[in-house]
Amino acid sequence: MTPPADSVNSAANPTLEALGEDGVLARILARLPAPDPARVPVGPGDDAAVSRIEGRLVTTADMLVEGEDFLPAWCDPVRLGVKAAAQNLADVHAMGAAPHGLVISLGAPGTTPVDVLTGIMDGFAAEARRAGASVLGGDLSGGPCLIVSVTALGTLTGPAVLRSGARPGDAVVLAGTLGRAAAGLDLLLAGCAPEGAPADLAALIEVQRAPRPDYAAAATIAGSAHALIDASDGLAGDLGRVARASGVAAALDRDALTALAAPLVPAARALGDPDPAARALHWVLTGGEDHGFIATVDPGRIPVGWTRIGTCRAGDSGVSLDGEPVADTAFRHFTGDR
Amino acid sequence: MTPPADSVNSAANPTLEALGEDGVLARILARLPAPDPARVPVGPGDDAAVSRIEGRLVTTADMLVEGEDFLPAWCDPVRLGVKAAAQNLADVHAMGAAPHGLVISLGAPGTTPVDVLTGIMDGFAAEARRAGASVLGGDLSGGPCLIVSVTALGTLTGPAVLRSGARPGDAVVLAGTLGRAAAGLDLLLAGCAPEGAPADLAALIEVQRAPRPDYAAAATIAGSAHALIDASDGLAGDLGRVARASGVAAALDRDALTALAAPLVPAARALGDPDPAARALHWVLTGGEDHGFIATVDPGRIPVGWTRIGTCRAGDSGVSLDGEPVADTAFRHFTGDR
Repeated sequence: MTPPADSVNSAANPTLEALGEDGVLARILARLPAPDPARVPVGPGDDAAVSRIEGRLVTTADMLVEGEDFLPAWCDPVRLGVKAAAQNLADVHAMGAAPHGLVISLGAPGTTPVDVLTGIMDGFAAEARRAGASVLGGDLSGGPCLIVSVTALGTLTGPAVLRSGARPGDAVVLAGTLGRAAAGLDLLLAGCAPEGAPADLAALIEVQRAPRPDYAAAATIAGSAHALIDASDGLAGDLGRVARASGVAAALDRDALTALAAPLVPAARALGDPDPAARALHWVLTGGEDHGFIATVDPGRIPVGWTRIGTCRAGDSGVSLDGEPVADTAFRHFTGDR
Repeated sequence: MTPPADSVNSAANPTLEALGEDGVLARILARLPAPDPARVPVGPGDDAAVSRIEGRLVTTADMLVEGEDFLPAWCDPVRLGVKAAAQNLADVHAMGAAPHGLVISLGAPGTTPVDVLTGIMDGFAAEARRAGASVLGGDLSGGPCLIVSVTALGTLTGPAVLRSGARPGDAVVLAGTLGRAAAGLDLLLAGCAPEGAPADLAALIEVQRAPRPDYAAAATIAGSAHALIDASDGLAGDLGRVARASGVAAALDRDALTALAAPLVPAARALGDPDPAARALHWVLTGGEDHGFIATVDPGRIPVGWTRIGTCRAGDSGVSLDGEPVADTAFRHFTGDR
């Protein structure tokens, strides 16, 4: 987030206050690809954008605040833009919907170099393009810190896949990864610099900084999943939500979790953990922000790209492993309830 | 924004950090009216909300940041919620669309009493109801100050009314007010407390704190307006945008502006201005945030509820009064360009 001092407030990279709101907006709009006029007949620039929507509309929002949801020292502007887009697009897919568009509001101090905002927009637009979504516009404000507030829109032509649809006998399946972003965060907290880190550790840090959810896998299961959720708060927390909403118990499979934890053991070892396998399993069970997708389906209908990690049973005993309940220790804002 | 000390972190009004994210969310969700299931089959609470949309979709966003877009001492939580909803719903109407729903992301320090957030939601939901919009969900984060970030969605069954449609010969017409919020802001800046102020001054302060746009008037003109804009940045700025986008000149009518300025003269006098009429006219020309609507129409088709304030002419000379150009001195973030 901190460019070299000689590039700040130069002619090429002025601060927001040197450029002024209209000048900042012009630079941001210049970075956005023009939306497809068939889907978005009026793009950014008027009072509002106009879209053509097929089917029902899906809406979700997520806000990232500097110091609270990210630290600038750990996340450059482009990766921050990717992350802001990805966490919202994942929620659209978690309803069984297809992404349509993104709306973004940015807040920043006037002393911020403009390339911080254009970098965020570059990452944001790139991840939107990867998911097939258009950037529909947004707003710009001052503020005491960086704020990236996003609303994502999707379209739903089939039924919505809710958290409440899981049935006893369903297989619990995963697309994407679990625990990598949490391991990456612990590496960053321990002072591990991504540039100098071994490739296997750097890869974990990269998931923390710029998650890349497997949108294609989520689209594959939308027609057959009974329940579907984006594991943004971790396996225990989010599968727990599915179990509670559906009135089922979810029993996790130890072998599957051990396989998911294996790539995390080197990180636990690098952190000097006396029990690296246990630490790696803990990341898999409770770490969020990979934005892996968790679904429940008929065990005979598990699509390619999905891995079985457990089974739904009758009962209301939440999420368990080897018969023991798994506690949800995911991050919550304001921290008063943990 | 500051409740009596004995009510803070009491059992009835705990801080966000005492209550925790899940507890705060539960209190916020409890304040929201359940949306109409025919329009919003899945409301707040799953990964995303699901809506049925008739026609094309309109999207717009506006973010309010404490210290930048509002001061807590001047704006209680309920009014802040009204303002956040109103400025977004006005933009939906400014496209000729009907409001459908609102998405809201809130950021606040953990030491904030929860009734600040529930108050914001009460005002937000009330203004949404007045406009016929549903609250579709949102997000909650920590942060160094209050942040209210909103996306508004509307539906468009007729053509979008753009800024670029004004034609030479059109009447420039207004619904709602101009300059009242700016006069109210200057009164607040001068230390005028709304509670003790005379009724005519208090009314101006109220427009600054909780604007109530004339949505019904905007809906009345959607079918006949050639251009339509929400005057959030003031008459000179926003009519200037219409003139530039349409390639016309807009000549304002002095008698109409004098009539609009008349209710503001007492405020200019209360502020000790040596030329109260000139100050009042300045507020009308450049003050934003009343969220009055400005349209251009065929002079023979001015609907009830709209007042003629000028005429569009061939040319590109911007906005003028008595043949002199009117400068746009509206507030801009980052301030570097003024």
